[in-house]
Order: sequence, then structure tokens, then C-alpha cells
Amino acid sequence: MNVLIVYCHPEPTSFNSTLKDTAKETFEADGHCVEISDLYAQGFDPVEKEEHYSHNRIEKDRFDLLSEQRNAYMTDSLPKEIKKEIQKIEWCDLLIFQFPLWWHQQPAILKGWFDRVFVSGGLYTSTMRYDKGYFKGKKAICSVTSGAPVTTFTKNGRGGESIEVLLRSMNFSLHYMGFTVLPPYLFGEIQNKDYTYMQPDDFTSHLKESINKWEDYLQNIHQVEPLSFCGWNDWDNNGMERKV
Amino acid sequence: MNVLIVYCHPEPTSFNSTLKDTAKETFEADGHCVEISDLYAQGFDPVEKEEHYSHNRIEKDRFDLLSEQRNAYMTDSLPKEIKKEIQKIEWCDLLIFQFPLWWHQQPAILKGWFDRVFVSGGLYTSTMRYDKGYFKGKKAICSVTSGAPVTTFTKNGRGGESIEVLLRSMNFSLHYMGFTVLPPYLFGEIQNKDYTYMQPDDFTSHLKESINKWEDYLQNIHQVEPLSFCGWNDWDNNGMERKV
Repeated sequence: MNVLIVYCHPEPTSFNSTLKDTAKETFEADGHCVEISDLYAQGFDPVEKEEHYSHNRIEKDRFDLLSEQRNAYMTDSLPKEIKKEIQKIEWCDLLIFQFPLWWHQQPAILKGWFDRVFVSGGLYTSTMRYDKGYFKGKKAICSVTSGAPVTTFTKNGRGGESIEVLLRSMNFSLHYMGFTVLPPYLFGEIQNKDYTYMQPDDFTSHLKESINKWEDYLQNIHQVEPLSFCGWNDWDNNGMERKV
Repeated sequence: MNVLIVYCHPEPTSFNSTLKDTAKETFEADGHCVEISDLYAQGFDPVEKEEHYSHNRIEKDRFDLLSEQRNAYMTDSLPKEIKKEIQKIEWCDLLIFQFPLWWHQQPAILKGWFDRVFVSGGLYTSTMRYDKGYFKGKKAICSVTSGAPVTTFTKNGRGGESIEVLLRSMNFSLHYMGFTVLPPYLFGEIQNKDYTYMQPDDFTSHLKESINKWEDYLQNIHQVEPLSFCGWNDWDNNGMERKV
């Protein structure tokens, strides 16, 4: 199996980095291949804008993002960092997003990865999406850390909602692209050691235990039940209404 | 009343820009004051990273984002573009976010505005958040455009969910900061005129009607019922559990 980890954290010694390394080592020990997109290290620019298309604009008077994406895909003139990300996704069977929850979502650099890499007219069209999406057959999962404990992520809880609801948008986008989406995996109480309420020894054990659980989870990831989403067959009227 | 519009679109002639102008003109005609943060025009950098704190680091060995935000706030050394955004929010009574729905959320440049502007230790602390948040008494609303029609945004619909659920994370973050959050306002079928299924005249009418409705909505915005969120009094055990 080929695994791509899209990893997003500004600090190389972060716990997110450890989780990324854990995943890499666990899969490689089982004979799988792993690639990493380290968005901060790559200096990935998350802001979708006209400069990315300036060498080959199709609409010169105004910047229409979807037209430029479509044209760049058709004329093989996408920015090279975007082509590279697409090639890595095409290569993988499993895509893991490793990131800290910032303001109840993924950090901006990872949001922009969606804005720029999932190219209109190339990776999705009006007939190639949802259960007929470009990446059909591949799995995806969000692996997320939060400072707050897992228990606060409940309906109307202090964390805002369950992690499934908070990441609904991100996971639906992955479904739109054809991925089979596994439930998000949340690591709670991951924070700077100076801010945790735990005793130092307990905090160290908590981190170790989190790593062990992640290893176990990944070794059995083929058994995990995916999230369930509607697809074309569930909708009438070109997707405008749910069948009753 | 003072109104801040945080506007996010890469194209100055976009319909999002028209909606931003409509809001400005409508409020000014009623004697209110309006300021705009035009994130693309300002070249706002949405990527939170150590370079933003390099002139005055508190933890030099590793980049701990929350520690650096806290320290920068306390020592009055936040980046000047961040100070400016904070001053504008402090000044306003109503905050409008104007943006297109990209991948079921706000564009990356606006996500990064949250990551960078809502500064830990200054604008929120463990005792200053939710209904005791820094921006208590101010209202906020997301004004959003989508290419898909409004009717597709239903539970398990082709748009992924209702716009309230898709923007739950963003709106909960606003609640966390103390804002009274109004339901999102969604403009459907807003796209390049070459891609709409409507006849040209119908499309022109659709846009005009959308603008008129927005004007009416804004003139009566003081009557709009806010979204309801839980706050401290609804939780036990320091926010870990909901009271039954």
C-alpha cells in the first residue's frame, strides 16, 4: 500500500511531527511505502490568486478562478508544486492529514491545499464527483490534535461539537473528490507541557499512550468503517433533492 | 453603528465585491460608519509561523504558537497588520465576513485571519471566552456565495449539509470570542456567467434580486434572531460536560 501523509505544523519537534513519524515508521515496518507533504517545510502558498496562473491566462480581463484552474489543467500549465501534490495523491492508496485543530478547523496552510490542489475541470467536473469522483477507491483520514480534552467535543460541548461535525466540511470535500473517508481520529490534551493541567509524569504517559494507540489504529486501519455520505443514487433532479 | 466588513475575494469585479459595496452603501445611507478589511488587496499572510514573532521570541528553542501570541500581546509586539485588524474589530459593533464558499468553508486567506488575529492570552483566556468573551456585545455574520443553488444545502444534500452546519466551526469560533452570531446568509447560483444554467436575462435578474434582498436584510439586521450556543452556565465540571 502507498501512503501519503499531508503534514501541517510549523514546529518540527511538535507532537504532530511525532505522530507523522509514527505513521511513517508503522507503515514502513509493515512493508508499505510512505511519502510526506510537509506543507510548512515546503513553504506551500495557500492563497489561491491570479499570480499562480500569470504565465498562461485564459481570461485576461478578470480573474475567474475556476476558468483558470480548468485551463491550466487542460494546457498542462498548473504550478509545479500543485502538479507534484496531485501526482502524490494519484500514487497513494491512503491519504492521512496530520494537523492541529486551530479555530475548530484545519490551519490555513492546509485549507489552501484544498483550494489549490483540487483543480476544477481536471480533478472534478459536474459528472466526476462524489461517488464518481477522481480519487475513487482511495481512503482518506484526518488525524487531529487538540489542546482541549476529547470529552469536550460533544453536541453543544465546550469544544463546539463532535469532531465529526467540526470537520464535516473538510470530510465532505474529500467525499466530493471520490475518497472513502474514515472517521477523524482525535488526540485530546495535546499542548505545551507548561500549560497542561496534568502532572509531568502523567503527561509523558499520556503522550506515549497516544502514540501507541495510533500505531495500533494504523495497523488495523483496513478494518475501520468509513463515514457514510450520500451519492448520486440518493438524489433526484440532478442532485437538487434527496430521494424520499 | 460601526460596521467592519472583512472581505475576501481575489477579483475586484466579483459579485462578492458588489455585495461588499452594497453593504457599505446601505449602512452609510443610514448614517452608519463602515470600514473594510480587503484581505487580498492587503496581501494578508494567512500562514501563522515563527517569522511573525522573530523580533521578540519568548521561547527560542522551539516555536510554540500560543506562547508567542501571548508574549507578543503582553509586550505590545504583535505584527502591525494584526494590531490593525484587532483595532478595527474593537471599533465595530457589527462584523460582516463576505466570502465565496470554497471547499465547503471560507477561503484559506480568511481561515488564516482567524489563526492570526484572535490572539491567545490577549483576546481570549481560559476565563475570557464564550459568553464571557472579549468581543461580547458585538454581532457577527457570514455572508457567503456559492455556485450551487441554495436548495442543495440540506442534510445529506449535494452541497454537503445546510450552510449552518458547514459553517458551524467558523461560527463557533466567533461565539468562542464572545460575538453574538447571526445565521449565515447564503447567496446561491453565483458563478461565472458562462457557467450558469440560467438564460442571460434571468441570470442578470437573479443577481439584481440578490442585491436587493441583501439591502433589505441589512436594513433590518437589528431584528435578526441570533444562533443559539451553549455558554458557561450550561456546562459542568469546567466545561467538560453539559448540565442535564
